[in-house]
Amino acid sequence: MLSKNQQKLLRALAQKKYRKQYGQYLVQGAKNVQELLSAGKPVKQIFATAEFIADHQLLLNNHEVVTCDEAELSKVSTLVSNNAAIAIAETEPQAELNTQGLVLALDGVSDPGNLGTIIRVADWYGLRQIVLSEHCADHLNPKVISATMGSFARVDVIRTDLCALLKTYDGPIYGAFLEGQSVHTTSFTAQGILVMGSESHGISDAVAQHINQPVTIPAFGGAESLNVAMATGIILDNIKRHG
Amino acid sequence: MLSKNQQKLLRALAQKKYRKQYGQYLVQGAKNVQELLSAGKPVKQIFATAEFIADHQLLLNNHEVVTCDEAELSKVSTLVSNNAAIAIAETEPQAELNTQGLVLALDGVSDPGNLGTIIRVADWYGLRQIVLSEHCADHLNPKVISATMGSFARVDVIRTDLCALLKTYDGPIYGAFLEGQSVHTTSFTAQGILVMGSESHGISDAVAQHINQPVTIPAFGGAESLNVAMATGIILDNIKRHG
Repeated sequence: MLSKNQQKLLRALAQKKYRKQYGQYLVQGAKNVQELLSAGKPVKQIFATAEFIADHQLLLNNHEVVTCDEAELSKVSTLVSNNAAIAIAETEPQAELNTQGLVLALDGVSDPGNLGTIIRVADWYGLRQIVLSEHCADHLNPKVISATMGSFARVDVIRTDLCALLKTYDGPIYGAFLEGQSVHTTSFTAQGILVMGSESHGISDAVAQHINQPVTIPAFGGAESLNVAMATGIILDNIKRHG
Repeated sequence: MLSKNQQKLLRALAQKKYRKQYGQYLVQGAKNVQELLSAGKPVKQIFATAEFIADHQLLLNNHEVVTCDEAELSKVSTLVSNNAAIAIAETEPQAELNTQGLVLALDGVSDPGNLGTIIRVADWYGLRQIVLSEHCADHLNPKVISATMGSFARVDVIRTDLCALLKTYDGPIYGAFLEGQSVHTTSFTAQGILVMGSESHGISDAVAQHINQPVTIPAFGGAESLNVAMATGIILDNIKRHG
């Protein structure tokens, strides 16, 4: 049973202002809550159906759990379906950036669904971190968390001044443009930064001047562009095929 | 200015039942309407802002055009933004399937956003047709059309009995599974069918028995799966890199 105050808090955390104020964020849906718990992330409270609780007893040990029915959870959830569990997680301090290996950096990706899908595909290709410029969507937005399908628990997000980072980096800096070297013929190195631009404007001019290897996904048909999440997945696949 | 009847028709065409009954579908947003007109598809009527009309005079020649303001268009549109134009297009008879070259076939892809994104990436990689099993989303759903970003006007959709098609096809039939040969090492041929499964159940058992080359996208991290549209794009990229 959800109290009035609990309902109010859960609804508030859908908004960035309150996530920041309380240092908490929402993780919704069975799969995402399970991944949150498996990863051992800090959790304040979990609201879940009796069925979810019975199925995840070990994971829920030492956690504060409130049993609710699915209709109650749906009323406070931002999801239309899959409301077996909602967790209030505690925001962690930002991880330190590790510039060894491949670094994925996003310049102004503003759609939460795209950001979540990018975190998911980054996880698929084994990245442990992604870098966001200051204009990207909030990675703790519930729509981002949902779209990651659990990958939010494995990929650290580091929000930073992207130009400052690129200025001091001395390896290859790949950037996705509509005109660049084909990703099919580029010899990607294991060490480097891949920059992906925003949905509407691509890579900003300020960031573009630091890119020393513009790359492009070869087009064979009439579409003018690809969705940024799709393009990120295809480029990561091209980088990782070389090991 | 939109009449009551026009508003009613535009709202009705958001539903499959009325699209079927009237043999018409909606194309919304400046980019999609422009692509519809450029492709010379049959159009019954266009509702657009004065600005859109001024910018597309040549394309709008010989079309019935009603000038509206954006607020009026937003009221009847299923889109939240980008409502400079809405067209009522006439459903065309289904194209004949051409099994020369690469054929993309979807088995039960039910999310309209995914279907639209797949049509867009198929267009990027030069496919002129895609095949849908009977359980796929309606490709004339406004959410599908929007997600194609204009590619709906270049890629023909053929809805058919997928098992019957595969049974009589004698080339390689590639299917995306979580366990198959890596797409990085598969020698794709220029002629073949690529089957992608549904979001929740993958490729159905009935379809799976016709697949002679199961393939998989190698995973390097912790994510359990990729979104079907993402997976389609990555596999098409792997097929097309061999020309």
